Amino acid sequence: MTSYSIIGGTGDLGAALARRLASIGREIWIGSRDPAKAETFASGLSAEFPDARIGGLGVGDAAARADVCFVTVPYAAQADTLQQIREGVQGKILVDATVPLKPPAVGKVQLPAAGSAVVEGAAILGEGVRVVSALQNVGAEKLAAGGDIDADVLVAGDDAAAVEEIRTLLTDIGLRSWHVGPLANSAAAEALTSVLIQLNRRYKMGQAGIRITGKPQV
Amino acid sequence: MTSYSIIGGTGDLGAALARRLASIGREIWIGSRDPAKAETFASGLSAEFPDARIGGLGVGDAAARADVCFVTVPYAAQADTLQQIREGVQGKILVDATVPLKPPAVGKVQLPAAGSAVVEGAAILGEGVRVVSALQNVGAEKLAAGGDIDADVLVAGDDAAAVEEIRTLLTDIGLRSWHVGPLANSAAAEALTSVLIQLNRRYKMGQAGIRITGKPQV
Repeated sequence: MTSYSIIGGTGDLGAALARRLASIGREIWIGSRDPAKAETFASGLSAEFPDARIGGLGVGDAAARADVCFVTVPYAAQADTLQQIREGVQGKILVDATVPLKPPAVGKVQLPAAGSAVVEGAAILGEGVRVVSALQNVGAEKLAAGGDIDADVLVAGDDAAAVEEIRTLLTDIGLRSWHVGPLANSAAAEALTSVLIQLNRRYKMGQAGIRITGKPQV
Repeated sequence: MTSYSIIGGTGDLGAALARRLASIGREIWIGSRDPAKAETFASGLSAEFPDARIGGLGVGDAAARADVCFVTVPYAAQADTLQQIREGVQGKILVDATVPLKPPAVGKVQLPAAGSAVVEGAAILGEGVRVVSALQNVGAEKLAAGGDIDADVLVAGDDAAAVEEIRTLLTDIGLRSWHVGPLANSAAAEALTSVLIQLNRRYKMGQAGIRITGKPQV
């Protein structure tokens, strides 16, 4: 069975994702700059989900250990994190959930020069890594709470097989998703995060999300 | 009663918008590079909607004539069009629906250096124009067909009063909308258009759209 690392796995989004993967009994390696913190979190989650195999490691070790790597770190930590895991993820699928939020103006879209944080990250990782963009628009609280989520996941990537493998996993953990085109289209999901932050503030919404509308014929 | 100009009003989106405004009996000035074409279109629409007052003019004349200006032109024509109407829209609300699509790769997000086509356009218009971004994500066919649309409009702008005036009009023509933050956040709506084009192709959807989910408390 495929194993998963979650780099930044003790943060809000990473921990929520870990919880979903644990709930379906997967092998999960939590990666943190602080390996002891990762181990503590992993132990707690293991106790709750005995069917899953969960361990905590440092960032580089976690990424090297698993088949598929999720990166759920703040934008400010993205480049440094990807440098650290670069060797360990060669030949693998890496799902980057990074959103280029620049505090304090996190409600304002501020995409990087490359057009997308995930595209910037892919350049660091090199051509040997199958980079997929996902999970920028699903609230961590909703994800952690379990159950159905009234929000879709936009999945972008240049490697269609990698995109579909991740979409299958997302379905398994209860998330509806769409393949929204090449990795460059991650820009749309990254920009939407600031829009959702605005909506949460302006309309006092409990974690706004988006749904795609229209009738698929395939 | 407020009057409206639609620059690019004989194009798909502009014509669909004109039809909606005509259906609620508004004063509409269709602006086209070809004034005769604008007049012909206006006459046809007038015959269909006798309660509305509809005329066709050149681009600059239409913009100068109305209180609020909608710009619905292709990206390649945006800068030149805004230069032509610049004088006529000073002090007014201008709603820019431009999407920076660069054919043939219209399904790939390619935002301009300023981060957003509408932000680029606002720089051409100058500080005296109350620029609002809207209507990038609603299919022209759906809009033209009349009736309810299963898609939301993201409205961005730095002038909150202008944003709310346009949102009220959108409600009047049957569209649900959200104020999604500063004009810079137009980037999200502009990027989403390429995502929707991808979805229409990949899943053979009849004009995909988005809905915001979550429960507003205000």
